Amino acid sequence: MSEPGRRRGRPSRTESGGGPGTRERILASAREEFGERGYEKTSVRGIAKAAGVDSALVHHYFGTKEQVFAASVETVLAPAFEAPAAVEDGPLDGIGERLTRFIFGVWENPATRAPILAVVRSAVNNEVAAGVFRRLVAAQLLARIGRRLDLPEQEAELRVSLAAAQLVGTAMLRYVIKVEPLASADLEVLVARLAPVVQGHLTGE
Amino acid sequence: MSEPGRRRGRPSRTESGGGPGTRERILASAREEFGERGYEKTSVRGIAKAAGVDSALVHHYFGTKEQVFAASVETVLAPAFEAPAAVEDGPLDGIGERLTRFIFGVWENPATRAPILAVVRSAVNNEVAAGVFRRLVAAQLLARIGRRLDLPEQEAELRVSLAAAQLVGTAMLRYVIKVEPLASADLEVLVARLAPVVQGHLTGE
Repeated sequence: MSEPGRRRGRPSRTESGGGPGTRERILASAREEFGERGYEKTSVRGIAKAAGVDSALVHHYFGTKEQVFAASVETVLAPAFEAPAAVEDGPLDGIGERLTRFIFGVWENPATRAPILAVVRSAVNNEVAAGVFRRLVAAQLLARIGRRLDLPEQEAELRVSLAAAQLVGTAMLRYVIKVEPLASADLEVLVARLAPVVQGHLTGE
Repeated sequence: MSEPGRRRGRPSRTESGGGPGTRERILASAREEFGERGYEKTSVRGIAKAAGVDSALVHHYFGTKEQVFAASVETVLAPAFEAPAAVEDGPLDGIGERLTRFIFGVWENPATRAPILAVVRSAVNNEVAAGVFRRLVAAQLLARIGRRLDLPEQEAELRVSLAAAQLVGTAMLRYVIKVEPLASADLEVLVARLAPVVQGHLTGE
């Protein structure tokens, strides 16, 4: 829950007494705390303690717990959000394979798998975290790829979200629940099976 | 975690002092506790308290916390496990639509949505709960539908799990994370888009 009692205005950064690097240190602690405990069990006080600052300074920089979470998810997903450019670029008839490889790339990379898993776990368990996930992923990934399809907006977004569902579901079963044979299937076998399906969702018929 | 210190043998039912209906009352409390708190935060003691019995009786009937969870998931999924018969029966070229309608049926039904959501949340957050989910869902759903395909076992199971991934991912985005446009899309629109994709996974090429 977002500790409404602690909610307060978000003063400008120049009022801060935290010194350079404080904001980044708080963000790093937030990533770690949310990643280890999940959204619900993480508190602003715990993040502040881990960063060696006062809770008031966390509120000062970021606002509510929800806003700290959003900022930390944004930094986790930032590298992933650069990739859609690579998905969007190139011929439309290869976009299914590029999107498939991009999603698997995030999950196969040890540096991004743990933070993404933490974000997914929080989003599945908590309505506030789900809202952050929705806004960031929907706004960044779905809308950007949807625009590339040259279709009416609603049709484009439905297509991208059905393609995303195939990839999200595969990632859930392979990396989170670890259902066989998906969990130990060869990556190239999966790409070969899924890329045409994703392409079909995006540009088929 | 499964409280290994409390692990003990599972005596036969005739040794029980719980009286008729006790087992069912414990199971109902277990469903409620796991559903509300998730796997990790639920304790055998809490289940016993909610059922008005001693913890020892819960261990007596079911064994460890993991085994209580497995039993409660089985009762939650029991109605869902009867449906694969309906998915398996009928012509092979309609199996994609039957499987699609079966999965959406579980999620659209208010009586099964909450328990399924609780099982999914537990499985995403806890390795033990994920193991229970894997064994039940994989053994029951994937293997049974796989056998219907008349293909080598490994190929059949890969196909069924990729089809399941499409449906699991759609359910996650629509019912759990509530990403638009999936969250408010018309059910028949989704079935019309997904049934051919699921059919393609199962019998295509």
